[in-house]
Amino acid sequence: MTKQVAVILAGCGVYDGSEIYETTLTLLRLDQLGIGYHCFAPDMDQHQVINHVTQQTTQGETRNVLEESARLARGDISPLSELDAGNFDAVIVPGGFGVAQNLCDFAVQGDNMQVLEPLKEVLEAFREDAKPIGLICIAPVMVPRLLGEGIAVTIGHDPGVAGAISAMGGLHRSCGVEEIVVDFENRVVTTPAYMLATRISEAATGVFKLVERIDEMMG
Amino acid sequence: MTKQVAVILAGCGVYDGSEIYETTLTLLRLDQLGIGYHCFAPDMDQHQVINHVTQQTTQGETRNVLEESARLARGDISPLSELDAGNFDAVIVPGGFGVAQNLCDFAVQGDNMQVLEPLKEVLEAFREDAKPIGLICIAPVMVPRLLGEGIAVTIGHDPGVAGAISAMGGLHRSCGVEEIVVDFENRVVTTPAYMLATRISEAATGVFKLVERIDEMMG
Repeated sequence: MTKQVAVILAGCGVYDGSEIYETTLTLLRLDQLGIGYHCFAPDMDQHQVINHVTQQTTQGETRNVLEESARLARGDISPLSELDAGNFDAVIVPGGFGVAQNLCDFAVQGDNMQVLEPLKEVLEAFREDAKPIGLICIAPVMVPRLLGEGIAVTIGHDPGVAGAISAMGGLHRSCGVEEIVVDFENRVVTTPAYMLATRISEAATGVFKLVERIDEMMG
Repeated sequence: MTKQVAVILAGCGVYDGSEIYETTLTLLRLDQLGIGYHCFAPDMDQHQVINHVTQQTTQGETRNVLEESARLARGDISPLSELDAGNFDAVIVPGGFGVAQNLCDFAVQGDNMQVLEPLKEVLEAFREDAKPIGLICIAPVMVPRLLGEGIAVTIGHDPGVAGAISAMGGLHRSCGVEEIVVDFENRVVTTPAYMLATRISEAATGVFKLVERIDEMMG
């Protein structure tokens, strides 16, 4: 049986959705390793729409997280509500500021953030089955709220985000862009990617390492 | 001096813009080879907006090609009108149905298609300087109108599109998904990518070969 990985998206575009390169690189490495995958996203309005030329909020425009995430999945995507951890061997959440706006409210609330309840439920199911969980870029900031305290993660070395992780009871470890942090006990793998990357090849090195480690941990 | 490649985009998403994986894989391989790049897109309304879940046109919604393309470039993009071939050593046009809707009207007009005039002008400048030109997926259908007749290209082996290329005076060569077609005299390199790919790793193999050949041809 081919191993299967669920990939959870938050829109399409670094400023209001999932980071496009991180997502594509994740899917590329999974496929190169012969691992099957399926993408999921919540069927809800985005927190906001950002014009990626001006980086300004587009007033009065709404977009749907599932519909925009479908662009990243070439249409082959399902609502997050249909994600059954029992059908997958691991889960990966790429980064992008949409993660901090649509999957949780870290962008607005900082360390008072809440995570999307359906996301929490599904991640808990992966954790209960001891299945590996990968989070990229800003996504690891959700770990204390999603999976509990005392789990080692990295978002690179941004002091503000690292401090928020600590304030929520997480363990932050500094990490280079081409490296990963692995919490073996909790089976959580993280990499900074575009929290630090200045080139796509740097992000690729870290993301590929994360996917390869997830592959090893799936056994 | 680092070699520089211009990448021309047509939106963000396979059904109404540039194909996301083809674009990301192009940028990845350029960066891995130490080649600089900059993205460009026309500052104009998209032909249409497609809901990538339902594949239906979203009635009454307009999006701007440059703003959507900016998602694929993490904001680092310029209007096509600012592309000066003199500043670049080669140009690459990834695929996606947005190419057939926004950069030309092949999706509507078939072999009666016209290409966007500013695109034609800039591609002619690359051709006059004998700089290599790469086109991926459906983008090679534009070659007879952009660069003239008798230039060998591939879009895989779709009979309708291959026939349209022939009808416009082009030379179509069948090609596998992991291969490229090179017209050495005209310095044009093409690969089928998602005209044929069923897996991202297949598209990657062809796109990487195209970028590597462009690199060799830049000297």
